[in-house]
Order: sequence, then structure tokens, then C-alpha cells
Amino acid sequence: MSEFRRDPLSEHWVIIAPNRAHRPEQFDLESSRQVPRRCPFCRGHEGDTPGEVASFARDRTACRDSQWQVRVIPNKYPAVAGQDQDLPAPPTHPLYEQRAGIGVHEVIIESPDHVLGFTALEDDQVALVFHAYRERLRCLANDGRLAYAQVFKNSGAAAGASLEHVHSQLIATAVVPTQVQRELAAAQDYHHRHGRCVFCAILEEELRAGTRVVRETEQFVAFCPYASQFPYEVWVLPRAHASHLEDTADAAIREVAQLVKDCICRFEVALPRPDFNYLIHTGPFGRPTAAPPQRPWPHFHWHLEIFPRLVKTAGFEWGAGDYINTVLPEQAATTLRNCH
Amino acid sequence: MSEFRRDPLSEHWVIIAPNRAHRPEQFDLESSRQVPRRCPFCRGHEGDTPGEVASFARDRTACRDSQWQVRVIPNKYPAVAGQDQDLPAPPTHPLYEQRAGIGVHEVIIESPDHVLGFTALEDDQVALVFHAYRERLRCLANDGRLAYAQVFKNSGAAAGASLEHVHSQLIATAVVPTQVQRELAAAQDYHHRHGRCVFCAILEEELRAGTRVVRETEQFVAFCPYASQFPYEVWVLPRAHASHLEDTADAAIREVAQLVKDCICRFEVALPRPDFNYLIHTGPFGRPTAAPPQRPWPHFHWHLEIFPRLVKTAGFEWGAGDYINTVLPEQAATTLRNCH
Repeated sequence: MSEFRRDPLSEHWVIIAPNRAHRPEQFDLESSRQVPRRCPFCRGHEGDTPGEVASFARDRTACRDSQWQVRVIPNKYPAVAGQDQDLPAPPTHPLYEQRAGIGVHEVIIESPDHVLGFTALEDDQVALVFHAYRERLRCLANDGRLAYAQVFKNSGAAAGASLEHVHSQLIATAVVPTQVQRELAAAQDYHHRHGRCVFCAILEEELRAGTRVVRETEQFVAFCPYASQFPYEVWVLPRAHASHLEDTADAAIREVAQLVKDCICRFEVALPRPDFNYLIHTGPFGRPTAAPPQRPWPHFHWHLEIFPRLVKTAGFEWGAGDYINTVLPEQAATTLRNCH
Repeated sequence: MSEFRRDPLSEHWVIIAPNRAHRPEQFDLESSRQVPRRCPFCRGHEGDTPGEVASFARDRTACRDSQWQVRVIPNKYPAVAGQDQDLPAPPTHPLYEQRAGIGVHEVIIESPDHVLGFTALEDDQVALVFHAYRERLRCLANDGRLAYAQVFKNSGAAAGASLEHVHSQLIATAVVPTQVQRELAAAQDYHHRHGRCVFCAILEEELRAGTRVVRETEQFVAFCPYASQFPYEVWVLPRAHASHLEDTADAAIREVAQLVKDCICRFEVALPRPDFNYLIHTGPFGRPTAAPPQRPWPHFHWHLEIFPRLVKTAGFEWGAGDYINTVLPEQAATTLRNCH
């Protein structure tokens, strides 16, 4: 069982998960490419992984046989676990806050074939991946012990991936992650002061300026944020105000999946190394005390952030909590906009 | 000229510094080791770098000739610059906060010889390095435009170093970095509620428990923090309450330098890869509004943090702002304590 510990100064949570040290590739920083003898994520090797929690067939229906196109399994080396356990009362300590490491850590296997890159998937397939995200979020939201689910993808060794078969992950926890809490607080504060969603205001400003926009589709906009932490960072937002990805309709799920794939295709054209992370910030499962129970929440707006892993964070970033970005976001957007 | 941009959601500052893109090694993530033809940091090659801002001889006196043992120069590819310029009034924008990238970015060359590792330096030499940190902080504190100086070391390619000759850096800015501001706010809050310094309370708790202590010296304690973000993370704190490294006496400067070297020696024995970052959190130059002008400030306590670079931060960490650490801090401390 892992545990959550909160740093009393930075107020970050840390998940102490010694069992993840047994991942075979850990600390093997030299090899940039794995050559698995037998890939546990390939069709036909289902017995090599923990039993699936969900599988989706080509027509998006749930399936329980070898016809799966997207398969969701528990992570074999989970950061959090104990889905069947009650959440114990946290111990009290005058300085050190602690929680049991209860939660859900899942792997979303994005293809039954040994495909390495998200951009090698067909449009139908990336749509199915995002459909799986939505269905897992809807399902986990019903677990009263869980407060949030972080969906993320590590693609390539530089992005922290340990297996090359195309996949993403989801970690659902009883605490709302620090970064999400800060975003929510900043968004709530902006809404309180200006009477509108800060993300809607950003979207309006980006569409007005145009200089940081990478691509617009009917329902979504991809742009390099004004204060991009990393070179070529891209955010994808729904145009219409929406606080939770779970509430997204089928057509929009398909559209955002294709737009994300298109952005990553642009990275592959423009950049020397395609490793990247993406992550989804959606509203927490519970409702914030000050907000009405109806969705969408007025102050929050779900979005997806993509970071190509071109640079290493170093001592300044860890100490300052601030970032040095060597590429002007307007220049990054111009480069990405012109990639076809 | 670079610029500071503040993300309206996370409230992080980002320094947009396109000129740093010209660093020769950038994006060269594959090579873990540089083989420089002619090292600009070696004695005799002083003409290959910008002119020095300070040099220190073996006896700690300032010197301006080839007898230097530690040499401080402006970074050739600075994140911030314009030391002679006035700080302009920031432009106003309803969403996007911006500041001129004015500040100081220096490199502290830690040996005139082509030494690669901090632990290969003699004790006198590491003491001289920390002496240089103190003198630079004292000097920069007199510049009324500067609010803070972040001292840090990137050692090895995995830690973000671009040159192998042993060195550290300092970035002084007109804004207090976000992470330092959050630490200060948390410390001020704790002091307000409990009437004492939170770092003194942590130190007392660590010495009482003992399980996370790596080494104690007369005036300093090295321990693995309760909520270590990274495997084998170590913090070094002065035992006696002290808010600013600049106020540290000569004997203590020598003692902390040797203790930091000793901790890194332990990493080299215990860990498969010695790359690491360290950074110093000291009090800002200015005085906080709510605190008395006398030093030490009652609520803040300077400290040094060391992070071995064993793991890559991935999508979860970037999205959550929280960390997964696979090594129990108590286990890390036991391992490091037993290294000789």
C-alpha cells in the first residue's frame, strides 16, 4: 500500500509508492528505446497483464473478448491501489499530513497491435481512445471515495514512458491534485472578480490576437499559451464553456481526439524529437462548495495540455517553481501552424 | 532582452528567453557526455568567456588575475540580463501579466582545472565555492531592483548541465520566484499560528525521530524530507535559526560546503547515476511587509535541497503538480547514512 505525504512548505502531495520501484525499466536512463521480447499490451497476450477493467470494440460498445480495440487494465505497478478498501481516517501529526494511498491506477492500451506512436493510429482509433477516457471518468465518478482522475500520456523514454506500445494512463485519487486545486482556485477567483470563466476569456483573447493559435476546428481551439512553460507547449480547449470532459458528446470526443493527433503530427514535422506528454485537466468529481450543483460549473473549463519533451528541467526550475522557455510562444505557434 | 510572463491559471512565472536557444548543446538529449575541444571555464581560457564579475583567490580575497580559484562570470546565454537598465513599468493587460527580463545570470566556475565533479574538489575548494555564493548574494542584495537570487547547480547531462567543467549558477530577478513565495507564505502562516519557525519545528521533529537523518554536524543537519519529491532527496539546514545564507559566518560556510560534498559522495556510493541538482532557498533581499527589519527573519530558515536525477517527471507530475516517489524517505536515509 502506498501513502500520500504532504510537504508542509510547498504543500505538494507526494505519493510514496515503493512497489513501483520494481518496474523493470526503472533507473535505466541510458536506453532511449526498449526492445520488449513479448509485449504484454499486444492482442493475444492478455494473460500477461492484470485482468481488464473495461474493453471497447470498434463500434464503441463494451466487449469482453479478443475483439477489443481499446483495453483498460489496472497498472501492474500502481502508484495507488486498494479499490475495495474503505478510506481510513488519516493519522494526525502536528507537521506531517498523511493519507492512505487508496485510488485507481489504470493503463489505457490504445491499440491491439504493436503500434508505437499515437499518430500512427487511425482517426477512428484515436476517437475510441478518447471515448474510453470519457467512459472511465464517468464510471470512476461514481466511486464516492474518489475526488479526481488525472488522465495522462507519456510517449517516449524522454517523457517517462516505460513501455513503447501506445498507451495512456489514469490515476484517480481521494485528493484533488495540487495543480488542479490551484487552477480551480485561480479560476474561481477570476470568476468572482469578473463574472465569467477565465478560460473563456483566454480563448476570446487568443482568437482575437490569433498569433498563438495553432489550429481551430468547429468545436475546439489549439494554441500555444501566452506563458508556455515549455517550447511548443499546446493547449486544446472546447470553444463552448464546459467544465467536465465526461459531459462531452460523441461528435466532440471524435473532434478533439483528431485535433490532438493533428497537433502531435505537427510536432513530428517541426521538432527533432517527438517524445511528449499530454494531460487532461477536467473538473473534479465532487462539486465545489461555492458552486451550484448543475454542470457545467461556471468557473472551470476542461482542457488538454501537450508538452513536447525537448528540454530538461534543471536546478533553477526546481528551486524557483518558474520556468525558462527558449522559444517564444508566438514563434512556436507560427511554426506549428505552418506544418502540414 | 527576455521577458517574464505569468500564467493566469498556475500563477507560475515563465522567463521567455529566445537567446538561450543558441546554446550549442540544446535539444541534444542523446549524448550524456560532452567532449569539449577547448573548455571556456579552464584557467588560461578566460578570454573565451564574458569578463568576470568576481574572482576569489585561495585565501578568499578578491583577485583579478590568473591566480583565481573560483571565478564568477556572466552567463553567455543569460535567461535575464540588462543589469544597467532601469526596471520599466510593466504593461497592463486584463489577463496576461508581463515584466521585463531584467536581472543577473551568473556562472560560478568552481575550479581553474578541468574537474568534472563537485566531490573531486578539495574541502578548501568547496568552502571557497560557498564563500563565493555568500559574497555574490551580499553584493546583489545592494541592487534595489533585484528581489531574489536563486543559487543552483546542475551536475551532469540528466540534471540539465550543458558544460561538464564543475560549475554552478545564480539567477537574480526582480520578482521573488513562485516556489520561494509559496514557501515564505506557508512559513509565515505557520509562524502566525504557532509562534515559531516551521523549519525549526521540522528540524526538531527530524532529530527526535532520527529515521530520516543522513548526517549531523556541529551546525548543520542533512536529512531526507518526510515528503521527499524524489528518491534520495536531501535537505541541509542550519541547526540555529537563520533566514539568510548571506549572514552565515566563515566557519559555518566551510562546514555546510563540506556537508553538501559529503552527501553527494554518499550518492556516488549508493546510486547508479550521480547526476544531481542542488539549490539554495534563502530569504529574499527585501524585507517582507509583515516582518521586522532585523535579521534573521523569525519565520524563514535558509536551506539547501539536493535532488539526484534518477527518474523522469512524466505526465502525472506535470498535470497533478504532485509527485510519485518510489523510495521511502526513511529507507533512502538509512542507505545514505550507511555509506562511507
